[in-house]
Amino acid sequence: MRVLVAGVDGYLGWPLALHLAARGHEVYGIDNFSRRRSVAEVGSWSAIPIPNMDRRVEAARNLLGLRIKFFRGDLRRYQDVSYVLRECKPDTIVDLAEQPSAPYSMIDCEHALFTQENNVIGTLNLLWAMKESSPNAHLVKLGTMGEYGTPNIEIPEGFFDIEYRGRKDRLPFPRQPGSFYHLSKVHDSANIALACKIWGLMSTDIMQGVVYGTRPDGITDLRLHTRFDFDETFGTVINRFCAQAVIGYPLSPYGRGKQRRGFIALVDSIQCLTIAIENPPKKAGEYRVFNQLDEIYGINELAELVRKAADSLGIGVEILSVENPRVEMEEHFYKVEHEHLKRLGFRPTRHIDEELEIMLTDLAKFKNRVRAKRDAITPRVRWKGGVSLPLKTRVYDERSMLQEQTIRLASGR
Amino acid sequence: MRVLVAGVDGYLGWPLALHLAARGHEVYGIDNFSRRRSVAEVGSWSAIPIPNMDRRVEAARNLLGLRIKFFRGDLRRYQDVSYVLRECKPDTIVDLAEQPSAPYSMIDCEHALFTQENNVIGTLNLLWAMKESSPNAHLVKLGTMGEYGTPNIEIPEGFFDIEYRGRKDRLPFPRQPGSFYHLSKVHDSANIALACKIWGLMSTDIMQGVVYGTRPDGITDLRLHTRFDFDETFGTVINRFCAQAVIGYPLSPYGRGKQRRGFIALVDSIQCLTIAIENPPKKAGEYRVFNQLDEIYGINELAELVRKAADSLGIGVEILSVENPRVEMEEHFYKVEHEHLKRLGFRPTRHIDEELEIMLTDLAKFKNRVRAKRDAITPRVRWKGGVSLPLKTRVYDERSMLQEQTIRLASGR
Repeated sequence: MRVLVAGVDGYLGWPLALHLAARGHEVYGIDNFSRRRSVAEVGSWSAIPIPNMDRRVEAARNLLGLRIKFFRGDLRRYQDVSYVLRECKPDTIVDLAEQPSAPYSMIDCEHALFTQENNVIGTLNLLWAMKESSPNAHLVKLGTMGEYGTPNIEIPEGFFDIEYRGRKDRLPFPRQPGSFYHLSKVHDSANIALACKIWGLMSTDIMQGVVYGTRPDGITDLRLHTRFDFDETFGTVINRFCAQAVIGYPLSPYGRGKQRRGFIALVDSIQCLTIAIENPPKKAGEYRVFNQLDEIYGINELAELVRKAADSLGIGVEILSVENPRVEMEEHFYKVEHEHLKRLGFRPTRHIDEELEIMLTDLAKFKNRVRAKRDAITPRVRWKGGVSLPLKTRVYDERSMLQEQTIRLASGR
Repeated sequence: MRVLVAGVDGYLGWPLALHLAARGHEVYGIDNFSRRRSVAEVGSWSAIPIPNMDRRVEAARNLLGLRIKFFRGDLRRYQDVSYVLRECKPDTIVDLAEQPSAPYSMIDCEHALFTQENNVIGTLNLLWAMKESSPNAHLVKLGTMGEYGTPNIEIPEGFFDIEYRGRKDRLPFPRQPGSFYHLSKVHDSANIALACKIWGLMSTDIMQGVVYGTRPDGITDLRLHTRFDFDETFGTVINRFCAQAVIGYPLSPYGRGKQRRGFIALVDSIQCLTIAIENPPKKAGEYRVFNQLDEIYGINELAELVRKAADSLGIGVEILSVENPRVEMEEHFYKVEHEHLKRLGFRPTRHIDEELEIMLTDLAKFKNRVRAKRDAITPRVRWKGGVSLPLKTRVYDERSMLQEQTIRLASGR
């Protein structure tokens, strides 16, 4: 299969590209490196140093014999999207090219706008370009479980059959997202559903749980590793807890810590995306929604699991709740249907305890890098009132990114 | 009350501003004149000539003794929004400043992007600026009944109580919009709901039916008239039928013509908006949804009503269906709850038959202007495949607008 991975430089994009290439697919990638810039902007970097894209592609070729063709481009520019689709003629397009952080979208108006514009306009360009030159391709779009919010009823996979005032219909399940980022994914979902309906495009919209993990399967060479963010904006909760653990900082659940969410290990996320790619919809116009998660945990429960895993490696850590910077229910019902991927063959391969040990061991090697940016872990972005501590000025030139790369490569080799 | 009308140069904006000023409110307006540009771009103009904003404001002062303070600005620029809110210190902001045409949003990728960017980013700027400087103001936001689509169950006002798999919740009613324009309004609704929830802003989100009519109440002087569009993109169905009637062109329902929609006369739309403005939400954080319509009609039924009204004025017209350029259900269930506004005192003042006579009489005076742009009535924008006849090139300089104004003023005085 010819697969275009948009956002190939990201946490999921890079390991997915390697995995697909290893399975014999012809893999193309596009990225504008905005993730590297945004992480630098919030004063952080990847705990695990990652080379620049030229070296990544080179390493894939030299170390694994895999060929990934890379395009530098921005989905917000129609000409970039159109060019790449014409060049790649993809059977599948995996859209991971979005600004993925809720706190980042809540910093201020500029960041909220950037998030919605980047995500919504990027996906719209992709849809119009698909209609133009790849109408039979399958769009695998990364959404988030956060699109649903936390309703007081079970969350089905995208749609539900209901009876209301004596009549029945099958309708999209109502979305109640909790940040401008989550909203951008809801907007995408709605835009994609229409494009499928009116143009006959095919799409799988992935409502993914929170991903955790340091490495894709079988990757040991540092030149092939994926990034690992631990700052408050781009670090997801388990990853953040593990980073806190390795530098002996207290793990910091937000608020009462009884929030419950769906989680999935990085390797299993890659497995699920691969299943979605290799099992495309069967008919034109099909828009399907997969809830992609493995287990549901409460936040305090996760902090306990990380503390226990750290303990077994001889690292003692405390748990110290901090005031919740978000506006969210801290205790709520949470039940999620997630059968579609299982029916297509998804079998979770990792247990969280094992994975936490791997993560802590991996991260221990880079604790100096975590420590150097430890200030970035503390929550500063508050849903109600913007940023409580100053962030660095926005850096839209490449300078700080290049500086970061220099440091990264120096310490990574 | 201090009221800021965003989109004050538009079909609803101008008569609403006059109406509010006449009721003793302090009225401010902002507009970027994009509607005038877009209508020129699709090769049309307002059937009823309208003066430029300076002259409109002057006429309101000289003929009615009303003061409207106008700002030229664009909601897509945060500094414009922020400046206007600080200057006006509004109690109420009425957001009518959106690209309002479904076909316009379906022309091509550029127009879809323009629509979503203009509408979504404009409203986001408004929300952030309100949080910053007008957190107690009430945002009256114009949405559309088209946000709901045509579900097979009754449409409630924004939210519904449901039972699903043995548990109950009150949730946003699922939206199934049918164009990138309608989607932009759905995105707005979701963004606004979050802003109310996390920042305590107050908003009334108006799901408005299709508006028809040539003039606000009591306005006879041409210098005070509102615009009247009849082209396929900006002309709503009844207005388009009336324009076709006065030039002896067949009325053209799309497809089978059994589509049903909610409708409301221009004067009653102004009445409803005024009710929403004068009865703001009672507590911080309240986000309420009003379905704003009077009667539900099928499209063929409307064509018959227009034919009959034209007949009674001695104008004979045919009805001739055309291939449906849209992708929509042509026969469907449609039942809409609309009680909130009635409970606050809304009483429809117009019967469609009387209103059609007024419209046809008004338009007859300008039939040369309709005839001059008759080609713009025929549907060229197809949901499935872009534009079937060439549109004029996009005109983003003001030239053609100025030309139009010259013609308009020449014939209008």
